[in-house]
Amino acid sequence: MKTIKVSLQKNSYNIVIGYDIINLLGKYVRKLNIGCDAYILTNAVIKNKYGRLLAKALTRHGISAKFKLIPDSEKSKSLETASSLINDLARYDKKRRIFIIAFGGGVIGDLAGFVSSIYKRGIPYIQIPTTLLAQVDSSIGGKTAVDLAQGKNLVGTFYQPRLVFSDVRFLFSLDLTQTKSGLAEIIKYALIKDKALFKYLEKNYRDALALKYPALEFIVKRCADIKAGIIQQDEKEEKGIRTILNFGHTIGHAIEAAGNYRVYNHGQAVALGMIAASHISSRLGLISGELTQRIEILIKTIGLPVKINELALSDIIKAHYRDKKFTGKANKFILLKSIGRTKIVTNVPLGIIKEALKKRLLSCRL
Amino acid sequence: MKTIKVSLQKNSYNIVIGYDIINLLGKYVRKLNIGCDAYILTNAVIKNKYGRLLAKALTRHGISAKFKLIPDSEKSKSLETASSLINDLARYDKKRRIFIIAFGGGVIGDLAGFVSSIYKRGIPYIQIPTTLLAQVDSSIGGKTAVDLAQGKNLVGTFYQPRLVFSDVRFLFSLDLTQTKSGLAEIIKYALIKDKALFKYLEKNYRDALALKYPALEFIVKRCADIKAGIIQQDEKEEKGIRTILNFGHTIGHAIEAAGNYRVYNHGQAVALGMIAASHISSRLGLISGELTQRIEILIKTIGLPVKINELALSDIIKAHYRDKKFTGKANKFILLKSIGRTKIVTNVPLGIIKEALKKRLLSCRL
Repeated sequence: MKTIKVSLQKNSYNIVIGYDIINLLGKYVRKLNIGCDAYILTNAVIKNKYGRLLAKALTRHGISAKFKLIPDSEKSKSLETASSLINDLARYDKKRRIFIIAFGGGVIGDLAGFVSSIYKRGIPYIQIPTTLLAQVDSSIGGKTAVDLAQGKNLVGTFYQPRLVFSDVRFLFSLDLTQTKSGLAEIIKYALIKDKALFKYLEKNYRDALALKYPALEFIVKRCADIKAGIIQQDEKEEKGIRTILNFGHTIGHAIEAAGNYRVYNHGQAVALGMIAASHISSRLGLISGELTQRIEILIKTIGLPVKINELALSDIIKAHYRDKKFTGKANKFILLKSIGRTKIVTNVPLGIIKEALKKRLLSCRL
Repeated sequence: MKTIKVSLQKNSYNIVIGYDIINLLGKYVRKLNIGCDAYILTNAVIKNKYGRLLAKALTRHGISAKFKLIPDSEKSKSLETASSLINDLARYDKKRRIFIIAFGGGVIGDLAGFVSSIYKRGIPYIQIPTTLLAQVDSSIGGKTAVDLAQGKNLVGTFYQPRLVFSDVRFLFSLDLTQTKSGLAEIIKYALIKDKALFKYLEKNYRDALALKYPALEFIVKRCADIKAGIIQQDEKEEKGIRTILNFGHTIGHAIEAAGNYRVYNHGQAVALGMIAASHISSRLGLISGELTQRIEILIKTIGLPVKINELALSDIIKAHYRDKKFTGKANKFILLKSIGRTKIVTNVPLGIIKEALKKRLLSCRL
């Protein structure tokens, strides 16, 4: 078991990572003194599998557990769902102190965080991530969000959880698609901050794909550590530090959006986005072609896509212009200087972006 | 013209107060560098009266002005309206940098602030309050909110504006009810912080009611100064300092709610709440009966209610228990030690609250 502190003055909190630690949760909640009624946002699958376990961990310490199910789909990340949850929460919130638990993956975490941040101008919430992607990435850092028709995550707040409780035991029931999605973000951490992790993945990717316990725990801890380190330097993405977490996401988001979030999932889109960013880095002389290939090989070996088959270049470019971060006329790319080191480049010529997408992706051969 | 700085580190901003200063707005916006497309939330009456003036002040400095009308009613402060505004905003938000202007009273300010705080995790907004209540109170301090069926302001954020621009010229078209509503909050400031202001009101209330320019400007400046001083010590109401701004509001909110927000408006309810709080203060030996009477006389002279005619005691008590701040079993009252000094008292016996409401209000004779 490991505890990583995210130091953000008044908004500081711990990330607790371990195997089969859920039974310790009640003690942690008691110590935080955040309330005695848990309103648990989750989906039916997670509740069936682990609901009783979670409820017991809480009620044993005098904390009531009320489950609220939402469909496990990006569609749940809407203002309508948030609104209906808040009304339900207000009806349930009677006399005691209420707090929220996000028990699930990224969708549930983003939505629960958003609801927590605006109900009564902020009530406490806890992240209990159950997917690899959520454990290494979305549960940490306080970015809450819902989507609009115009784009993903267009509505939200910066609102830190009071605790992130990552029990790697929950990962053992993940399917291969979810595991790969998580691995895409893990490769991202390696590329922006940790060459040793990149080498570890090259050697041990089979263990990760097979959900082997020590590999998973090592990876989750390492990524949480990296993310915590970045967040505490730039909580609200104002200093250009947190922005490196968007490596692969500029093009990745455009690919997701161009396919209407149906053709490629987030992990797949980020994998493709990282390949594009690597190619742009190489084209601008920041890294060698060999390095680009080494990155592609790891992504391909893990079973993530390296080729865009079903989208038109023009649709990706169009979606790219609608990006939340795209204000004014300048684009902004997080590029690589080596494995583990980044460089932010603005105004990458459109021709080079198109080239990276067209030559290297739409007709990519490895 | 006067500028009051609200010092909140990164969230600091100025309150600019003056007569006929709206034409200077464009320069201020330019200097803040917050964007070049203004999305102006207002109502039809304000737009008809002052819309062209505001648009000119902006366009002259290269800032586009898009007006969005919402009905001038507490009903507009809903999650549904917020949601529809955000969708409209996202459709309008194309390539340039957008910011929001709240151009109206408290409803528009609370709603515009809330929308600004959650769209793209926060975009800049400016308060241009047009009512007395908004100029002295709701436009300052960054409390944003919408209502739920379960209660007022149950959803919201702490999100500071980038500028509060109070042109007292806008006050000259207020009707008497709106003026009195503002005066209720002004009496509140005097009671909690400023004996000199209380004496000023006793002498000059006629000038204020008649919307005379120097009186209004003096009062708006004084109250803004008091509120800024309180906010900068306790931005998010965590230290028990900001809470004194709720003087008269504990019972006031209950009176508003018990009448379904139709029997008494906010100012009237706060006036009644302040009388109740004064009686409780006197009953607990904090102030004399004479002082209580002096407070009642000012409130009555201004034309605010000192008697509750149309509500049942039990409904007020019931509504009081539903208060947002009422967590756990203890109630919390801001009481007076003298004019200008407060004391926070928890666990005021229900009997004393009922007594203050029953004997002194439901059958009050002055």
